[in-house]
Amino acid sequence: MATEFKKSPLAPEKFPDMPIIDGAEIGTAATGLKYKERDDLLLIRFPEGASVAGVFTKSKTRSAPVDWCRDCLRSEKPARVLLVNAGNANAFTGRAGDEAMQKCIETAAGATGADRDQVYVSSTGVIGEVLPADRMLAHIEAAAKADAGWEQAADAIRTTDTFAKGATRHAVIDGRETVINGIVKGSGMIAPDMATMLGYVFTDADLPSVVLQQILSETTGPSFNSITVDSDTSTSDTVLAFATGKSGAGAEISDASDPRLADFRAAFQDLMTDLAHQVVRDGEGATKFIKITVEGAEDDRAAKVIALSIANSPLVKTAIAGEDANWGRIVMAVGKAGEAADRDKLIIEIGGQRLTEAGMAAQNYDEEACTAHLKGQDIDIFVDVGVGGPGKAIVWTCDLTHAYIDINADYRS
Amino acid sequence: MATEFKKSPLAPEKFPDMPIIDGAEIGTAATGLKYKERDDLLLIRFPEGASVAGVFTKSKTRSAPVDWCRDCLRSEKPARVLLVNAGNANAFTGRAGDEAMQKCIETAAGATGADRDQVYVSSTGVIGEVLPADRMLAHIEAAAKADAGWEQAADAIRTTDTFAKGATRHAVIDGRETVINGIVKGSGMIAPDMATMLGYVFTDADLPSVVLQQILSETTGPSFNSITVDSDTSTSDTVLAFATGKSGAGAEISDASDPRLADFRAAFQDLMTDLAHQVVRDGEGATKFIKITVEGAEDDRAAKVIALSIANSPLVKTAIAGEDANWGRIVMAVGKAGEAADRDKLIIEIGGQRLTEAGMAAQNYDEEACTAHLKGQDIDIFVDVGVGGPGKAIVWTCDLTHAYIDINADYRS
Repeated sequence: MATEFKKSPLAPEKFPDMPIIDGAEIGTAATGLKYKERDDLLLIRFPEGASVAGVFTKSKTRSAPVDWCRDCLRSEKPARVLLVNAGNANAFTGRAGDEAMQKCIETAAGATGADRDQVYVSSTGVIGEVLPADRMLAHIEAAAKADAGWEQAADAIRTTDTFAKGATRHAVIDGRETVINGIVKGSGMIAPDMATMLGYVFTDADLPSVVLQQILSETTGPSFNSITVDSDTSTSDTVLAFATGKSGAGAEISDASDPRLADFRAAFQDLMTDLAHQVVRDGEGATKFIKITVEGAEDDRAAKVIALSIANSPLVKTAIAGEDANWGRIVMAVGKAGEAADRDKLIIEIGGQRLTEAGMAAQNYDEEACTAHLKGQDIDIFVDVGVGGPGKAIVWTCDLTHAYIDINADYRS
Repeated sequence: MATEFKKSPLAPEKFPDMPIIDGAEIGTAATGLKYKERDDLLLIRFPEGASVAGVFTKSKTRSAPVDWCRDCLRSEKPARVLLVNAGNANAFTGRAGDEAMQKCIETAAGATGADRDQVYVSSTGVIGEVLPADRMLAHIEAAAKADAGWEQAADAIRTTDTFAKGATRHAVIDGRETVINGIVKGSGMIAPDMATMLGYVFTDADLPSVVLQQILSETTGPSFNSITVDSDTSTSDTVLAFATGKSGAGAEISDASDPRLADFRAAFQDLMTDLAHQVVRDGEGATKFIKITVEGAEDDRAAKVIALSIANSPLVKTAIAGEDANWGRIVMAVGKAGEAADRDKLIIEIGGQRLTEAGMAAQNYDEEACTAHLKGQDIDIFVDVGVGGPGKAIVWTCDLTHAYIDINADYRS
């Protein structure tokens, strides 16, 4: 049985007001399989000719739905259906799990007139249990006829997320208005078993899949691939983007480098980053949202390795939880990253206060200002690693608190 | 002020009975700088002609004492003195820190008749504070004349270690008896600031430095380089080995591959592994000692990457703390390691109970036996990653508990 955890103190005040995406028809249903009295099934229908793009986990033990979506993308057919269930990840369930997935796909295809390889599926929740497909099929058919809104959609894909996560942006392509909506779930690898980061972006722009794929891929790096809650990578991580084409915006564009895409690309990136931040803000046990900027590294890759080394260090994360300006742990995390760094030129700033310079503690920094910053919810860490290179990276993470242990050790399925 | 933490539940019953090493004269002293009413300074004197070897942290931000020891080793002179202080790491303290270290070295050299580059030093404790050398010099001189035992030596190098750590072995080289003693400190990167894993091995064998170095280097891999408490690598990690030569054992040996070293090498490895395990058993907040064996990987390197991915996963560590056979998290950790693994052939065993096979949960495993195993203190995890390769690795770690957060977040210097 699922336990509800208290809403994250870092949650946004309310779910955003998200407009309709012309052509994306949302249905939700409550299967009652794991969660009682709430929707746990999402089915979104797309019109003929919808473009689709995807990025997936790099895990070597990825789930069957991830493999299925990758195969669908390779077929280069338009997408017709997105089907997501919450509570059972159907991962590591062998052939029985594959068969259950196929039954669900077949039912969704039948209910919507789609081909099977036009149905994109994600499953999230407990692993190692075969999806009880027979108990889901009627609900899939019901969801295919239902009429729901974006907040319901974001709610239906939650597992132990403490709030529904969505974002919306407007953009203009070549003088025509288009809308981009996104929903996402995830708050780490969630108890009682591992769970998933799943993100879905929808637009009424009329862009071919190849263009959508390039924009999705390039905006994933500085958003979902720049966040970490606990350094643990899910077997099911998936971000899919769908374009219904109904606004007609972009109909003349066939190349992702087309300058008319500048506004759309910026809005898309902004939305992806917003969604990624919401996952961190719902990080298990999080009380602080931490931005880590690394500069002066050999190249961007090295900067990101160092930034993630800081972000994933249990000692840095516990120090922030304790509101302790323990910069020695940041020095340690820079050192262990294995990328070039100059101990004697390292600069560390917290909340704009310079704590170290020239290989030692900075003289006369304003400790009071630094402590006041650490008592807030948004923590800003800046590191110049001192080798004078052009490499820069920004990553986001949260602190490591007792609540993380509560959720992951004390909580038993 | 240092807080004393409760002795680890995983501590050995008592400190071992360690024999004298002929030629190694131990002195300790209490400087009163950080710890009150206990020794915090260790000085060991060696006779003329003692061999020395060392392995050090790979951190890019390593401390001045680490750089000093590396330079001393390069000089290829015999060692005369080991000087260790606890409570101040003298790391990230710039030129002032270097000067303080030099003063201590000069005093130790003067008190023992050694050359400066025959004095090996380690500092462990708070970083970013310059070592107050002037307040230490008289204590260094006192320690150079004192007469202490191995347990006092192991006690004097502790920072927040909850117990003194030592081990002893006998070996025979070419018919001659020799003794190997070791002491170590470390329990993670310890509050209130980062601390260190420091290990020292002493023998009365008569082996040249080049042989000692090779044995030290090859035994470090399966011992200290196969443990992890929290994935955070210290800037000061150091293991040094000293051979006084007084037993005469090995006097005719000049090559580490000499078969007459077999017994010595085995005993040395056994002692190194014992010391490394003691560090894990004093891991911050540890309640379980976890052995992770990975087989069937492409090669040993890949096996170790996967084993460390499991050992460092906060989700695996919290599951063990919660006595939860949550094998899905082990699947995840194998997947995220990035090394070849076959999801559909993966075998996971906990306490000898097979939990998964053929890409899904094993049928009919004895859950009661598995739960009983997890309620114990010594946890055994076995993974065959299923690619059929010869790669094997064993690593050791501890669980992640509330006490880790207490020590690292709630505890403020």
